Amino acid sequence: MASAVTELEEIAAQIYEQLSTGKIPEMAVPTRSKNNIIFDEKSKVWKYGNSETTRTAKKLDGAYMLLRTTYLLDFIREMSTQSKSSTLRELYYISEAWDLGKFHAQDESNKLIEDLEIVTHFQREDFKIRPEEDGAKVLGDVTLTEINRKGQPMKINCRNDVGDTGYNIPYNVEENKITFDDFGKSTCIIAIETGGMFDRLVENGFDETHEAILVHIKGQPARSTRRFLQRMHQASGLPLLLFTDADPWSYRIYSSVAYGAIKTAHISHILATPSARYLGVTPSDIINYELPADELSDRDKSALKSILTDPRFKSKYWRNEIELQLEINKKSEQQALAKYGLDFVTNTYLPEKLKEMNIG
Amino acid sequence: MASAVTELEEIAAQIYEQLSTGKIPEMAVPTRSKNNIIFDEKSKVWKYGNSETTRTAKKLDGAYMLLRTTYLLDFIREMSTQSKSSTLRELYYISEAWDLGKFHAQDESNKLIEDLEIVTHFQREDFKIRPEEDGAKVLGDVTLTEINRKGQPMKINCRNDVGDTGYNIPYNVEENKITFDDFGKSTCIIAIETGGMFDRLVENGFDETHEAILVHIKGQPARSTRRFLQRMHQASGLPLLLFTDADPWSYRIYSSVAYGAIKTAHISHILATPSARYLGVTPSDIINYELPADELSDRDKSALKSILTDPRFKSKYWRNEIELQLEINKKSEQQALAKYGLDFVTNTYLPEKLKEMNIG
Repeated sequence: MASAVTELEEIAAQIYEQLSTGKIPEMAVPTRSKNNIIFDEKSKVWKYGNSETTRTAKKLDGAYMLLRTTYLLDFIREMSTQSKSSTLRELYYISEAWDLGKFHAQDESNKLIEDLEIVTHFQREDFKIRPEEDGAKVLGDVTLTEINRKGQPMKINCRNDVGDTGYNIPYNVEENKITFDDFGKSTCIIAIETGGMFDRLVENGFDETHEAILVHIKGQPARSTRRFLQRMHQASGLPLLLFTDADPWSYRIYSSVAYGAIKTAHISHILATPSARYLGVTPSDIINYELPADELSDRDKSALKSILTDPRFKSKYWRNEIELQLEINKKSEQQALAKYGLDFVTNTYLPEKLKEMNIG
Repeated sequence: MASAVTELEEIAAQIYEQLSTGKIPEMAVPTRSKNNIIFDEKSKVWKYGNSETTRTAKKLDGAYMLLRTTYLLDFIREMSTQSKSSTLRELYYISEAWDLGKFHAQDESNKLIEDLEIVTHFQREDFKIRPEEDGAKVLGDVTLTEINRKGQPMKINCRNDVGDTGYNIPYNVEENKITFDDFGKSTCIIAIETGGMFDRLVENGFDETHEAILVHIKGQPARSTRRFLQRMHQASGLPLLLFTDADPWSYRIYSSVAYGAIKTAHISHILATPSARYLGVTPSDIINYELPADELSDRDKSALKSILTDPRFKSKYWRNEIELQLEINKKSEQQALAKYGLDFVTNTYLPEKLKEMNIG
């Protein structure tokens, strides 16, 4: 924590120095437009390029922005001395007391926090700023130690200690909060898009019969969920598999887990898991398993076409699947597997898919 | 469980009897329009009136409906012998295999399940049908026993055993799943609308400093959350308090917890807690604490006006507050209390409000 605050104090010191030497203060941040984001082929994740934008107090808007920045630096320093943290929403309201520095909308405060992350190479969690915890959960034979509010370690087995609903992934999943102790006989980590399917695999005991660690990622997963997946994957060496609906929005969930997202390009290295694999449901599955399906909407079709030009999806596998989907003009939900009964997904579909992928 | 299935078999037997005696089969259900819902002044909850609608196979639509009903009865019986359960979404897909009985949309299957609840006086959970678990959570000194998937009891303290994110409220919270063992020195139950505020009270340790049981109800609470609140209130005898935003949508959250909702009028007696009290944020609070506020939208205004004619809000307290809100033309979020810093809500606002209400 100390060093994140030190970095922020550095920013304040620069502004102070500029002011005291009679210069108009300014602050440079990497340009955050689409043009300045590159897909790094080596590390397989999104990153910012080299172009920079300068915020200067020459203009009124820029001056206010620098004022807000200094207020914010002060607030973060204060929280850190008190071992407090604040939600992004609270931060927005905190600024009500800042007089001229008040934010006009939460977008502004969110964006400023991201700027500080980019400039300092720290994460908002290091500044004690966080989103609302979003309810992602894990159930399986994972034992971890959580450092609780009082700084005490609690050893928790995410199957035997927490009830059938699983262990909630907290907003802070860094080493100062969570350490992984043991993965039992687990063979893989399955990240699941919908709660209904997560509950199905839990009820059918797939975490036991196939020693799978089940994670409910709640649609497009929050940062902390992606970070948790990455850390668990690295600590365990287990394959990370994505189990989602068969539509372009779900493929994007996969790609943000595997390769990162444009909005968080500055922290791809700690969020993304390039070795993550897509388990299904695939367009081929729609045909092979004769799944109930809906027609693609115009929005679906244009999203699929844009995926065809996305560097994250340039493999032959994805090209074939996307082209097939456009051809059959169909999409399916993962819960559509229930057509063949409640056990089909755990007795037939997943075992077949895992075998195909040489897992377990 | 046996008796819910017995009730369903009774319905099937009636249809069979009608068919075998040469009658056109039919089934009567209480009319579910707004006109047939009455506010029961004695029990203070919404209930259905006496008018009935008859589904008859005289018309093709009605015949399909009866066919679907019998398929569904069969499916529920099968699940119950296998100790399985199904989400509402899965049920919709299950019907894909029913040939002529297929549902056209999930609305249809959801509604049929509600009809069966009304006719049999059981709950969908008794039929092993359930929604996706929604992520509501509890944190505080409550010890409960959960019967897990394997039928084994797990004693869980919702503060010391589950980590800082709390215990997830499962979709089934009946006595066969959850029993309450102990409430420590707890003085009240606070049901909180937003995750940000729940996290705030947890971080500030309000569950310890004020011995409050904190429940994150996730906006308009799911059935299981309302049932959990009612059961916990009854088992503990502790006052149940609602802590929400100050806007008409939040007052509706309060009223559905306290008095029930129109959609679930047939099970108000097991969901509603008429003694639940509204803690805030109130329109008076907006003035007294000079909270950051937004103007009411036209939708807010008409919702407030409709609340003025709602029997659940006819007390002088609510009348004054709603009229005041229309007059000042403002609404506030609970996180707006952060204007005075992160500790204001737990050091000042809540203690003052609880004192006012003679609690703790």
